[in-house]
Amino acid sequence: GYNEQTKAMLMTSYGHIPWGDAHHTELSQTDGVPDGRWLFINENNTPRIARIDLTTFETVEILEIPNSAGNHASPFVTQNTEYTVAATRFSVPTPQRDVPISTYKENFAGLLSFAKVDSATGRMSLAFQVEMPGFDYDLSHSGKGPSHGWSFFTSYNSEQAHTLLEVNASQNDKDFIAAVHWQRAEECIAGGNTEQRSASYAHNYIDQSHFAQSEMMSGVTVTNVALCPGLVYYLPTPKSPHGVDVDPTGEFIAAGGKLAAVIPVHSFSKMIQAIADEDFEGEVSGIPVLRYESIIAGEVEDPGLGPLHTEFDGNGFAYTSMFLSSEITKWSLEDFTVVDKIPTYYSIGHLSIPGGDTRQPWGKYVVALNKITKDRYLPTGPELTQSAQLIDITGDKMRLLLDFPTIGEPHYAQALPAELIRDNQVRAYDLSENTDPYATKSESEVDVVRQGRNVHVRMTAIRTHFMPDNIEGIQVGDSVFFHVTNLEQDWDVPHGFAVIGARTAELLIMPGQTRTLVWVPIKPGVFPFYCTDFCSALHQEMQGYVRVSPRGSTVPISFNSPG
Amino acid sequence: GYNEQTKAMLMTSYGHIPWGDAHHTELSQTDGVPDGRWLFINENNTPRIARIDLTTFETVEILEIPNSAGNHASPFVTQNTEYTVAATRFSVPTPQRDVPISTYKENFAGLLSFAKVDSATGRMSLAFQVEMPGFDYDLSHSGKGPSHGWSFFTSYNSEQAHTLLEVNASQNDKDFIAAVHWQRAEECIAGGNTEQRSASYAHNYIDQSHFAQSEMMSGVTVTNVALCPGLVYYLPTPKSPHGVDVDPTGEFIAAGGKLAAVIPVHSFSKMIQAIADEDFEGEVSGIPVLRYESIIAGEVEDPGLGPLHTEFDGNGFAYTSMFLSSEITKWSLEDFTVVDKIPTYYSIGHLSIPGGDTRQPWGKYVVALNKITKDRYLPTGPELTQSAQLIDITGDKMRLLLDFPTIGEPHYAQALPAELIRDNQVRAYDLSENTDPYATKSESEVDVVRQGRNVHVRMTAIRTHFMPDNIEGIQVGDSVFFHVTNLEQDWDVPHGFAVIGARTAELLIMPGQTRTLVWVPIKPGVFPFYCTDFCSALHQEMQGYVRVSPRGSTVPISFNSPG
Ligand SMILES: [Cu+2]
Ligand SMILES: [Cu+2]
Repeated sequence: GYNEQTKAMLMTSYGHIPWGDAHHTELSQTDGVPDGRWLFINENNTPRIARIDLTTFETVEILEIPNSAGNHASPFVTQNTEYTVAATRFSVPTPQRDVPISTYKENFAGLLSFAKVDSATGRMSLAFQVEMPGFDYDLSHSGKGPSHGWSFFTSYNSEQAHTLLEVNASQNDKDFIAAVHWQRAEECIAGGNTEQRSASYAHNYIDQSHFAQSEMMSGVTVTNVALCPGLVYYLPTPKSPHGVDVDPTGEFIAAGGKLAAVIPVHSFSKMIQAIADEDFEGEVSGIPVLRYESIIAGEVEDPGLGPLHTEFDGNGFAYTSMFLSSEITKWSLEDFTVVDKIPTYYSIGHLSIPGGDTRQPWGKYVVALNKITKDRYLPTGPELTQSAQLIDITGDKMRLLLDFPTIGEPHYAQALPAELIRDNQVRAYDLSENTDPYATKSESEVDVVRQGRNVHVRMTAIRTHFMPDNIEGIQVGDSVFFHVTNLEQDWDVPHGFAVIGARTAELLIMPGQTRTLVWVPIKPGVFPFYCTDFCSALHQEMQGYVRVSPRGSTVPISFNSPG
Repeated sequence: GYNEQTKAMLMTSYGHIPWGDAHHTELSQTDGVPDGRWLFINENNTPRIARIDLTTFETVEILEIPNSAGNHASPFVTQNTEYTVAATRFSVPTPQRDVPISTYKENFAGLLSFAKVDSATGRMSLAFQVEMPGFDYDLSHSGKGPSHGWSFFTSYNSEQAHTLLEVNASQNDKDFIAAVHWQRAEECIAGGNTEQRSASYAHNYIDQSHFAQSEMMSGVTVTNVALCPGLVYYLPTPKSPHGVDVDPTGEFIAAGGKLAAVIPVHSFSKMIQAIADEDFEGEVSGIPVLRYESIIAGEVEDPGLGPLHTEFDGNGFAYTSMFLSSEITKWSLEDFTVVDKIPTYYSIGHLSIPGGDTRQPWGKYVVALNKITKDRYLPTGPELTQSAQLIDITGDKMRLLLDFPTIGEPHYAQALPAELIRDNQVRAYDLSENTDPYATKSESEVDVVRQGRNVHVRMTAIRTHFMPDNIEGIQVGDSVFFHVTNLEQDWDVPHGFAVIGARTAELLIMPGQTRTLVWVPIKPGVFPFYCTDFCSALHQEMQGYVRVSPRGSTVPISFNSPG
């Protein structure tokens, strides 16, 4: 839900879009280790990245990604959260324009976007976009340690099909991982080796008063290998790679070729050597293709079928999800041999080890995030309940600890030690610092003021009543702004607010906060409001009435207040 | 989310309201036993009852309850699902009108609503409303066996306070349970002892073509004790009763007086005798108040603090949730003595035994549904994770089996043996029976037709492509109706559909169904759509493009199709 304070967070260049298709979470990192400050999450359908403040678990910023479509390879961060990345899943005309779909190869391009994250505030800004061939971009991870400065992106549909991809996009034996040297991009931007392109996108953030602001931004800096040589190299990778994962040392780059028979593991140091040696097997759209044999560290043989994603335990082992054979395969980073397998139920997609894609995995458990449930749970519908599994990885053999149902596809998840978040929790917003223009800091300040057809109700909530709780003088067709301030200053005492006939969801008001709901009564009568968030033994008594008179009535504004 | 087929389900007399505040589920019953046909669920804020068809788990009907406010005591059913009930939580002027809130006692009334449920189809219709004093109505259960024909409703605020109820509504020592003889109401209606009152309310249902229809109904039949003597009696009950629960035999009516020191248990047979004897201690608004001492079967002493709700195991024992002392108290229906207690973490509200409020409890487990979590789980926010517990009740002592977190307050729940639902599941809608006017039953039938500013796209989805997946000739400002038919006829192969910039959530299209999303493009370009519901190894390839030209463009409608 949203309220008057937060609704601007959902603005985009396509209008107000209150839903999204989130796939991947990404914890902020310092020196390649999750630091518990922020959580980023992607929106796939109308490309956006949201940032959640982990002290409050509230979404504090949403950045739209322009000239992009299907923001799937996102929001993976670099080692110190210098950037969070986004890549177009579907290539589109860039900038957007009215061209025949059949001109795909000439007119469609891919963009890999790098949003700068302010190290003090977390504030995102779209720094630059890397123009790429018109493939589909799928997933990403950034380098670490020696490979810090680089980001890796998988692509499929290097055939550049624009119809029936299930057939037309699986023709080539090898697709590519793009290695993007973003530190090189920074040099090119400093040197002016860029283009400014038209773009229109929303940047929304919560301001000091806990109000969401939406700014419509224009223009974006674009670069590419023509403008900035050395920016991108291609790592040839067997059939339609999906995941790309970098091990904790930063040396190994594991690819999940979903139709491949092996797990190819590239070597970052060999890649750098091959670049120095100009050891290329060709080029695609001006991007040098490195020689597969020169950069490969090893191929994991007989891993199972359908490798997708790999996470790491920090003890020299990697764990790859095998979608088609429904198992997790554990293999050694020393000799690239399989050391263990455990079945999953069924069709595992992502898997998650706490810190498992960072420099410091807390590698005791892996969670299998399964895509298909079949007979695992009772068939409640319409979609079947989905499934995840908790597996112990501390011993030589993986060991299933718990099978558990989830709501919706458990796409991806991340975890970190609780103390990194728990100890920084904001347990109540300080009422004295509440700068909402309609904040009401004590019951004696409440009021109800008419301004033309708008009526502003400054209301308080505290266990276990609203003040005022009897309001008269409202007229049919007024916009009634219920500005409710929660006067509590204790841990875990939110209040809620709903009024009969409200078209948007109830308010959730955390201690010390002010939240606003707008209500437009369409008929005369006396209508109740009540607290929607269980708050005490007398929660059921936390209610009030608002009287609505016909338009033009002489009933004056009145309300109760203490004393 | 909703789509073009289902959006009318959310219409009310207050307009289109896409959210609700659900509290209680209720399974349909035959002869007092859950039969696995339908699940009813209440909406508290804008009073409604929804009916979910348990063969498909889809909401097939929503009935608005007029002249009601805060539909909390709902949707409890009678023994053969003759009725599902609803009661106003907040009394309001009835019918609604513009009166001062201070005239509460003169002008405000409560209504207890009885919606008839068609025994063959489940279809609801508002049969009658029972007019009651202007109290707050809280919870309900219907009689069974000997008490079949009666429904029981708790009320609080018999003080009729209209402000600061936390103080003003807890003055009286005893409030009331209203015993409503709905079979008597049927006689009075047949005899014409009723009033027709003005009312406007929505009745929404899914028709044969899987389309939601919304009808605005007017007028309602009201009766009361003046028109229909013998309709209602009051059972005096200690302080602010919350839950009212009838044991499997139908003889005992247990009340949860949330500020009471005992659990009072009324006797149905004594109640009938007291009515016959006219053994009254007074009357309230014409409703006879039965003598407490004459109707009480027993008082459970020292049960703990804050009794709220009671469920039954079918073996002679009752289980009452104790909110203030955070425990479940097991007591005997033979001698009303406490036989066991188990702590809960924390502040239990409802509790649930499979069939525990019916004639046939499957009484092996009870689930504690807790209202406050405190330190039980890690503090993820903004609200803390909520808590429930599974407890074994097969032995003399209750035994905690599992503690588990839940999202949001786990208000109430019901359970029944899986085979009652599982064996009747609709695993796919029969494509040959799909009567949606825009259904497309094979790929060769797909088309794209312009009708003025509307464009109708008849599209199919099957693993792993849409047909058509390249569409041209759309113009800025068109309303594009994507009518997507899922051609699959297998278990658990839904597809999804989303298009960039769509303002409403993605479609979920079950096998054999047609669902429609309307999209109004606001800028020229080529925009992708894709499948949002994981469907196969090639799900990521299930995509397409739609070209949008400027208004007035000469680009003709075109699209790909097989052969
Ligand atoms: Cu409250
Ligand atoms: Cu699909």
